[in-house]
Amino acid sequence: MTTTEAPRRTARIEGVLETALYVADLDRATAFYQGVLGLGRLFGDDRLVALDAGRPGSVLLLFRRGTTLETVRMPGGTIPPHDGHGPVHVAFAVSETALAEATEVFGEAGIAVEGRTAWPRGGRSLYVRDPDGHLVELATPGLWPTY
Amino acid sequence: MTTTEAPRRTARIEGVLETALYVADLDRATAFYQGVLGLGRLFGDDRLVALDAGRPGSVLLLFRRGTTLETVRMPGGTIPPHDGHGPVHVAFAVSETALAEATEVFGEAGIAVEGRTAWPRGGRSLYVRDPDGHLVELATPGLWPTY
Repeated sequence: MTTTEAPRRTARIEGVLETALYVADLDRATAFYQGVLGLGRLFGDDRLVALDAGRPGSVLLLFRRGTTLETVRMPGGTIPPHDGHGPVHVAFAVSETALAEATEVFGEAGIAVEGRTAWPRGGRSLYVRDPDGHLVELATPGLWPTY
Repeated sequence: MTTTEAPRRTARIEGVLETALYVADLDRATAFYQGVLGLGRLFGDDRLVALDAGRPGSVLLLFRRGTTLETVRMPGGTIPPHDGHGPVHVAFAVSETALAEATEVFGEAGIAVEGRTAWPRGGRSLYVRDPDGHLVELATPGLWPTY
């Protein structure tokens, strides 16, 4: 006798909503993401700055390193602890025109472009460092089958 | 005499494209993100698995920890080094219906729900851990002005 196993159900995810970076200095990081990348501020306190990453349902969270190590208890529930270290990678979507403009914006801000890539599928990327050393990529469409 | 400084130009970002997690075991992490969360595979090698996070232009990158410490040189250009440690936070968008279903999916997979929150603005979240201890949130609309 053989048994046929039904395909396991999975969650139904509709995109990454929040991408978190852990930073040493919230003001310094915000100056980069808001002042240079142009992201709009959604929320801010001395622990967290939340930024509109430029389209609905795409939020960048800047956490002051060391402030997320304990469970947060709120009237509505709890947020378990988390933490991050290391110069991580994050990529942002930009148009072809915006990529060219961003090169000038970085030049005016004295931010060095650390790498560039033209992708096999299409699309181009440039890489800069944020004030914490995180590797920030701006990428144009074509890179992925879904972008 | 006063000088009026023009508002500084910024980049024009259209969303987070790639969110990176650094994991100890690519197969183990992929089993969670593909097999439990249901994300589709876009690319994979022994260094990196790229997953479709469920909407156009939203990609989750799983990097095998330790394989991103050197500059990658390709015919089209270079990718500078990066790295990450710590149980970081990432949130995914789900509908109200999908949040309820996800609770059952996690139960069937033997994954404990570590926290739940109802947000002041609206929207609800649940939190689980991925196999590397990263804090994974599923959140329904209402949480942010842009979501």
